[in-house]
Amino acid sequence: MTKNPTGIVMMNLGGPATLNDVAPFLLELFADREIIQLPFQRWLGPYIARRRTPKVRRLYQTIGGGSPILRYTEAQGRGMVERLDRLSPETAPHRCYVAFRYVRPKSEDALRTMHADGVRRAVAFTQYPQFSCSTTGSSLNELWRAAHRLNLQDQFEWSLIDRWPVDDGFIAAMTDTVREGLGQFAPGDRDRAVLLFSAHSLPLDVIDRGDSYPQEVGASVQRVVEMLGAPNPYVLAYQSEIGPVRWLGPSTERVIRRLGARGHKHVLVVPIAFTSDHIETLSELDREYGEVAHQAGITHYKRTPALNDRPRFLDALAEIVRSHLASGRPHSSQYPLHCAGCSNDQCRRILRPVGQATAPRPPAAPGSPDTAPVAPTGLPSRAPLAAPGRTTPGAAPAPRRSPGPPSARQDGAVRRAGERRRGRGG
Amino acid sequence: MTKNPTGIVMMNLGGPATLNDVAPFLLELFADREIIQLPFQRWLGPYIARRRTPKVRRLYQTIGGGSPILRYTEAQGRGMVERLDRLSPETAPHRCYVAFRYVRPKSEDALRTMHADGVRRAVAFTQYPQFSCSTTGSSLNELWRAAHRLNLQDQFEWSLIDRWPVDDGFIAAMTDTVREGLGQFAPGDRDRAVLLFSAHSLPLDVIDRGDSYPQEVGASVQRVVEMLGAPNPYVLAYQSEIGPVRWLGPSTERVIRRLGARGHKHVLVVPIAFTSDHIETLSELDREYGEVAHQAGITHYKRTPALNDRPRFLDALAEIVRSHLASGRPHSSQYPLHCAGCSNDQCRRILRPVGQATAPRPPAAPGSPDTAPVAPTGLPSRAPLAAPGRTTPGAAPAPRRSPGPPSARQDGAVRRAGERRRGRGG
Repeated sequence: MTKNPTGIVMMNLGGPATLNDVAPFLLELFADREIIQLPFQRWLGPYIARRRTPKVRRLYQTIGGGSPILRYTEAQGRGMVERLDRLSPETAPHRCYVAFRYVRPKSEDALRTMHADGVRRAVAFTQYPQFSCSTTGSSLNELWRAAHRLNLQDQFEWSLIDRWPVDDGFIAAMTDTVREGLGQFAPGDRDRAVLLFSAHSLPLDVIDRGDSYPQEVGASVQRVVEMLGAPNPYVLAYQSEIGPVRWLGPSTERVIRRLGARGHKHVLVVPIAFTSDHIETLSELDREYGEVAHQAGITHYKRTPALNDRPRFLDALAEIVRSHLASGRPHSSQYPLHCAGCSNDQCRRILRPVGQATAPRPPAAPGSPDTAPVAPTGLPSRAPLAAPGRTTPGAAPAPRRSPGPPSARQDGAVRRAGERRRGRGG
Repeated sequence: MTKNPTGIVMMNLGGPATLNDVAPFLLELFADREIIQLPFQRWLGPYIARRRTPKVRRLYQTIGGGSPILRYTEAQGRGMVERLDRLSPETAPHRCYVAFRYVRPKSEDALRTMHADGVRRAVAFTQYPQFSCSTTGSSLNELWRAAHRLNLQDQFEWSLIDRWPVDDGFIAAMTDTVREGLGQFAPGDRDRAVLLFSAHSLPLDVIDRGDSYPQEVGASVQRVVEMLGAPNPYVLAYQSEIGPVRWLGPSTERVIRRLGARGHKHVLVVPIAFTSDHIETLSELDREYGEVAHQAGITHYKRTPALNDRPRFLDALAEIVRSHLASGRPHSSQYPLHCAGCSNDQCRRILRPVGQATAPRPPAAPGSPDTAPVAPTGLPSRAPLAAPGRTTPGAAPAPRRSPGPPSARQDGAVRRAGERRRGRGG
């Protein structure tokens, strides 16, 4: 008798694999208010997307005609699963599934294949180390919607790896890339190179809502610098801002320009929030900002290699999943906390969380969560979960939220995270 | 024969000790472009200061008629020095001196007393754990200017403790206050309290220049949460924004309001960037935002106690100085790196850094650095220092900057940090 495999969904934004994928990718991206909120989005989104398409096509042309992100994500998944089968035989076999946002394979593709493979226990594993509603949050929301569209909302028991900004293995792998990056400088210049940590920026409106991204990126940077133990000065900046809204700064491009103007000749860019090469590293950081650096008089402008399929990073991915599976936790204790300014009721949910005794339900009617909300909305979010293994003496179970209308409860396979009994213990 | 004492300058913004100090304090604060840059500052600064004075006077009235920050800083200094004399007999005796920015004792007061006490070795110790040009940077710039005004620029051999965002002792002491804060909630509510880390905000223009403050605050938050090991969700927000410019968000006040609107009943505010009680904790967090919380339906709104003179924090302060003195380092390797967008040539300097063999100089003519620049300005900043104890094999000494005009060089007791020979070894 073969065991049902444990499914691990590798979630990422993705990128167009061919030049013909560029236009639809951008159209979907700029239409999605979970990623970017524009004034007059219905009009401005497609306008920006169409306007950018020729330029972005040319950029992808320069990096080989498409994004390598699928290739790397698949390699990461393979390496991770091989290791997991050894590290965690009790949850083996493990299989990985890629779920991108705007190009295939999308969430539906992953879920269908998981179903065909007989997966019951599933882990949604964000490939963004630092949480943002614009990235991980949006991917998870889409995963639950896709499960409903496919009527697979009762198929899997889920848990989430929703952030890992200071995971030891991740930091060690990232620090390795920084050491390798510094190795590109002459020994006499090595200590004077400025480490320019660069992360994708976010619109300030997202920041002002209370997105945890800048805090977590700041923590990642600190940890890498500590582990590196080198005397190089460093700065954190944000890249890739587009559109007519104000973004979180300082801007990577501007910092490069100003470092050059201040006489710095040696700069090492460290993409701290990306795990694979893609357009933002290969084109924006390497080519576009490389030209900026050149013009600014920075004679030695280098980038750390991306984590891609580096064995130490595959080790890290496997260990993150192994310890997550062993913990029995459905998600981090941060996940249930909506951004204070959140206006998206689809956020912070989880389908059939692991560890919750759930009687089998009759299959629910297909339908989008928009038309049949699966959890009462407009209610206060629940208080946070107790972390597994940490019982609170004397903590009474939190009162359950009063059930919604019967239809909603029956279809209630999606729950807001935290909407369940507390103190389930370790 | 008595040894010359080691002088430790405790640097902070300070606060008005009496109600009559409020008006001049605010006038100086809003006039200082190193702290806040306003459009039409010469006009708008005094205008805002005068307009705020009556309100701020009332606020100080409600907290006892003045800021307790001098009292706490003195207590911190005393406790630190007692411990240091035991921990580091080779640098004993230690004496501490308070240097505030806009109220006495100011930098001049500290420097005069140090001179009278026979101090030769001096440490400028910022009381802001996380570095910002608006706080630590500004205080250091003023310290060097004051030394020149007093013609004491050759009196002391200096080193800087310019940041300590993830110092183990600081984090442990801060985590203790969070545990104590959580203890104010009923056991059944304790795990569901949202930890609202709050730090003083900065204008976005400062952020966009590349100030390291948000990165370091983010790192402090992460470390406290890790050491705490509790399941409480947390969020980082920024408080105290004033004036007509846009500040870094999310705003603490708005987050409180929205947490209440989302149904949270239990909030613990953690002032992560302050070490003493003062107007921002006693009045703004406790009273003003306490009222906001009450109106928003947060039934249990608490604040962690400030570090003040808690013994564990005094231990931390002493250990920070002890290890700093033992390292022989003149400052962190971050200090020499100007913000990329810096336009202040007074930044990132140090007077007679420790460990640099400096022949005694003839006393320089008194004069403000504005009229007699002590280091050539407008030149690129130097590459960073090698950290002490870490020599780079094969690293050639960096070429010295071409000397400025003789008068500037003779007066050159203030150096831009990093403007010196590299690789001085450990």
